[in-house]
Amino acid sequence: MISSTSNPRIKAIRKLADSKERSATNTFLAEGLRVVGQAVDSDVHIQELLYCEDLLISDYGKSLVEKLKQNTSVEIIEVSKEVFESLARKDKPQGIAAVIRQKWADLNDFSSVDRGIWVALEAVQNPGNLGTVLRTCDAVGAKGLLLLDHSTDPYDPAAVRASMGAIFTKTLVKSTLNDVVNLVNHDNIFSVATSDAASVYYRELRYHKDMLLVMGSERQGLPQEVLAKCNEVVKIPMLGSCDSLNLAVATGVVLYEILNQVQTG
Amino acid sequence: MISSTSNPRIKAIRKLADSKERSATNTFLAEGLRVVGQAVDSDVHIQELLYCEDLLISDYGKSLVEKLKQNTSVEIIEVSKEVFESLARKDKPQGIAAVIRQKWADLNDFSSVDRGIWVALEAVQNPGNLGTVLRTCDAVGAKGLLLLDHSTDPYDPAAVRASMGAIFTKTLVKSTLNDVVNLVNHDNIFSVATSDAASVYYRELRYHKDMLLVMGSERQGLPQEVLAKCNEVVKIPMLGSCDSLNLAVATGVVLYEILNQVQTG
Repeated sequence: MISSTSNPRIKAIRKLADSKERSATNTFLAEGLRVVGQAVDSDVHIQELLYCEDLLISDYGKSLVEKLKQNTSVEIIEVSKEVFESLARKDKPQGIAAVIRQKWADLNDFSSVDRGIWVALEAVQNPGNLGTVLRTCDAVGAKGLLLLDHSTDPYDPAAVRASMGAIFTKTLVKSTLNDVVNLVNHDNIFSVATSDAASVYYRELRYHKDMLLVMGSERQGLPQEVLAKCNEVVKIPMLGSCDSLNLAVATGVVLYEILNQVQTG
Repeated sequence: MISSTSNPRIKAIRKLADSKERSATNTFLAEGLRVVGQAVDSDVHIQELLYCEDLLISDYGKSLVEKLKQNTSVEIIEVSKEVFESLARKDKPQGIAAVIRQKWADLNDFSSVDRGIWVALEAVQNPGNLGTVLRTCDAVGAKGLLLLDHSTDPYDPAAVRASMGAIFTKTLVKSTLNDVVNLVNHDNIFSVATSDAASVYYRELRYHKDMLLVMGSERQGLPQEVLAKCNEVVKIPMLGSCDSLNLAVATGVVLYEILNQVQTG
């Protein structure tokens, strides 16, 4: 059992709170019963499981530890209460956490045959919004998410939490708006962007079952040259005094229209 | 100019970070250019304007101060940089904040003639979600929001920020699920609840232009006895492994369906 908060391994794990460190190690720390459970239920690569006997009171949590002990590729690390609390972000830590390998797909995976519905987010800043979009992607059966340009880290703890496990199941691709727009044009992928300057409402368009929905940032929206390269640009009706919806809400509203059209043919 | 962080008025304003203090004084602190600007543009009662000459560099911010100086009902308080930073939640405070009176309507306002679309949230916990629902209410032209039972405070800074000004324009009512359901039944208000156990999909129902949409909490959903008292219960299709959507996304998806039906007749 590790009982020193200055143990080198513990110090390295604590550093995963920083996005640069997550990126350099290609890992992230998932904490708490729910999110570790979701990781175990998916096919992600869990490198290390950390648990604290004193804090882990739930039977479900204990069963997760037992299950992972059977898996020889997972290193099991028991830590003291003090050590666990030094790693935990929650006020009442549940005594279970996992260091998990990040999973990134290539842009070519997006352009493969089994295409389906994809979402591209341009320069999304709020990790909670990003995670919520992933959760909605799961709900509508979308394949994955393209994170373009200076988008925030989907492995930020707030994004992981908001995704409700979708971070482990949806395909993630990091790319640039430019590369994606070029690919979409080259491969003839039906692409729809949203913009408050569009002339067509989102309910008026006929969507395809294989397509890309491109969402811009709330403040700036998508650049004109991108809108020009997408097949269609749609707007969401706004009746009030706010000039935009929350990004995750706007994405959800359009995705459910696409799902409805795909389902009803 | 107040330059002491222990000035009694400043100490009292600092206490507004606490929900109980906001409730006891029936006020809240709105901070930053955008949100103070939204307050000035609406008809809320601004009690005090706080500004700091050293931090307020924007011309727009200066014009807000000048505008409020003409309004004799607003007390203008100039503070030092140190005092402003002691009140600010932002990393880079913009040097402008306002103490604003909370505005609550009565349950009878909901049941008045000019009814329109209303949303009831049961036991919503996350202030960001609450603010995002308000923002969506604004976008679809809904009249207001009923906050039921142990819902979080809409005047929490995270809720105010997420509402993008809708906190100042939408009608807010605090009530209980029980009282609302009784009123809805007594006044024959068309009420629709959402539940993953419903047999009807949300797109299959015909909505009314005067109605109440009742949304339960993400974790527990609505109690059976409430579902039984609503006119209709609908579900949102969920194709993935997550068992629910984010509350603000779910509310947005159903509200846009209602708006579409109301607009297209």
